[in-house]
Amino acid sequence: MAEMKVKPQRVKDFCVCALEKAGMASDDARIAAEVLVTADMRGTATHGTIGLRGYIRQIREGGMNPKADIEIVREGQTWAVVDGHAGLGVVTSFKAAQLAIAKAKSNTVGMVWVKNSNHFAAAGYYAMMCAEADMIGLAMTNADISLSAPGSAGRVIGNNAFAYGAPAGAAPPVNLDIAMGVVAGGKVHAAAREGRSIPMGWAIDSQGVLTTDPKKYEEEGGATVPLAAHKGFGLALLIEILAGVMTGGGIRTELKSYAHNPESPSGIGHFFMAIDIGTIMPIEEFRIRMDGLITGISSSPKAQGVDRIYLPGEMEYEREEKTNTEGFVLDDGALNNLKGLAQDLGLEDEGFWHQ
Amino acid sequence: MAEMKVKPQRVKDFCVCALEKAGMASDDARIAAEVLVTADMRGTATHGTIGLRGYIRQIREGGMNPKADIEIVREGQTWAVVDGHAGLGVVTSFKAAQLAIAKAKSNTVGMVWVKNSNHFAAAGYYAMMCAEADMIGLAMTNADISLSAPGSAGRVIGNNAFAYGAPAGAAPPVNLDIAMGVVAGGKVHAAAREGRSIPMGWAIDSQGVLTTDPKKYEEEGGATVPLAAHKGFGLALLIEILAGVMTGGGIRTELKSYAHNPESPSGIGHFFMAIDIGTIMPIEEFRIRMDGLITGISSSPKAQGVDRIYLPGEMEYEREEKTNTEGFVLDDGALNNLKGLAQDLGLEDEGFWHQ
Repeated sequence: MAEMKVKPQRVKDFCVCALEKAGMASDDARIAAEVLVTADMRGTATHGTIGLRGYIRQIREGGMNPKADIEIVREGQTWAVVDGHAGLGVVTSFKAAQLAIAKAKSNTVGMVWVKNSNHFAAAGYYAMMCAEADMIGLAMTNADISLSAPGSAGRVIGNNAFAYGAPAGAAPPVNLDIAMGVVAGGKVHAAAREGRSIPMGWAIDSQGVLTTDPKKYEEEGGATVPLAAHKGFGLALLIEILAGVMTGGGIRTELKSYAHNPESPSGIGHFFMAIDIGTIMPIEEFRIRMDGLITGISSSPKAQGVDRIYLPGEMEYEREEKTNTEGFVLDDGALNNLKGLAQDLGLEDEGFWHQ
Repeated sequence: MAEMKVKPQRVKDFCVCALEKAGMASDDARIAAEVLVTADMRGTATHGTIGLRGYIRQIREGGMNPKADIEIVREGQTWAVVDGHAGLGVVTSFKAAQLAIAKAKSNTVGMVWVKNSNHFAAAGYYAMMCAEADMIGLAMTNADISLSAPGSAGRVIGNNAFAYGAPAGAAPPVNLDIAMGVVAGGKVHAAAREGRSIPMGWAIDSQGVLTTDPKKYEEEGGATVPLAAHKGFGLALLIEILAGVMTGGGIRTELKSYAHNPESPSGIGHFFMAIDIGTIMPIEEFRIRMDGLITGISSSPKAQGVDRIYLPGEMEYEREEKTNTEGFVLDDGALNNLKGLAQDLGLEDEGFWHQ
């Protein structure tokens, strides 16, 4: 695959330019650029700028309002319910997480439920915002249905995502970002596109039988499988309750995918929560205890052939630090996606890709 | 295996009697009996009265104080840090969950961190207390180390447990209760005791290599495996942060098991959280939306040979309803355990087992 090394700021500039062209205000476009390019820099490009072309298609086809702002529809001291008005999920979520952090700063805990949002890319970003504010942060989203439940033949719930973040002292913040499926639907799509089979355990066919044929997931009403069977299903359901039921927004089959239904608002909901650590325990004590926990684990005996035990988010943290100075690599797929978007928008001569 | 059908109230009476003999006040003993027998009634006997003999051994050997009460060491409107003073984890947790519920009733959310506790049996019970109070409830505990991390050769973290509960309308409350390992350590112990091999994927040996030999987990510094690799490890770590780091209590290797170290307080921590639904959304609206979510899933097409799709806790809810009127079956192991305890305490002639 062709690859190209790019400077983070150049890619951010391009994202801002593209979103402005699509009708978004500069401040919001800068938020989106920051969130998406950070995912690329952390080595999680599946949730980075690769989504931008699809988001802008959703704007152009009417499913997303680039000028939407968040509206607080109900609130208390420690919580708010927010309407995203079908804006870019990344911007809506950034603002909602900021609101949770502000409430936690004043009242120890902040919980923000968001309805009428769209795809919010990497859940981990919003949890890290909390960690950077010396808080424990949770971020969750529901999604269009793709997972089975134990005993179901088809799709019954989204590959709902969960992230948390917590600061440490000398060690990097801990940051886990996971979805509740054994595998991301995108990996099954890729296998189908490339004519490869998939490992047994990833997906079921329309009869509920495990299959190695990715087309049975794609074309014939199959589903991907929740991690650890009833455990992953049960966790996906908790996210559906918090991000769907409690927000008053879309649930299960009411949700759309921006990739398949760009003409529709996706109807996605999120839940953000921040807990201000310093109110509960002196933050320096917390940092020392976190470092002890982290060092205790990372210095444990390693399995044969293993050099390091990584804590959640540690690898991504190091990649981000490195790419900040050295730039990062966009692979063929990500690069062609951005080039295609540039072409869509008549931006191809702007020279964003030259170092 | 020999089995015996018993009336729940008889078993509760026995538990109360046994705990009183061990020095516990009647009110606390009744709480413990309720929590433990409910686990038996729900068909989760691994977290029920089978633990009682070990708990009482821990009292007699000095690791547990049967007269301990919870002490609030720090608190705010929405939160408290509680010292369990090495009391019975089940009683401490019941009171801590009550405190979280009371705080949520007044201030929408209640978070209670507990340190210096002991084994708390079924996490799901405390989450269900919240659901019965029309709240979303979370309950978590850390535990002595038994799980590996991806890349580790030995045990680095506990098989930490997580539960949530949420009420519904016509449908039973949703109640998930899971630990972060692929399998409970007890199942590996049982295989070792009975000379059976274990499925590949449950455990690693002391070199970090997957093994089918349960003795390599038990005797030679092996570990069980977290569910979905880094996902289960990352979730176990979140629980360790909330139940260990934030409580100011024991972390990782500081924790003991009541089964192996009855002479020591186990140093376990818990985290309970309750969110009062009615403040965020009218409770009737929430119930209707929950019923819609649940019915949508349970009425989905079934896999070949499957009659029903169960929601988390649904099977347990139905079992509890049934055993309330019909009594429940204690299998050989559970029955001998209780009989042994009766003998320990000179209670063998009290006739608790006769219908």
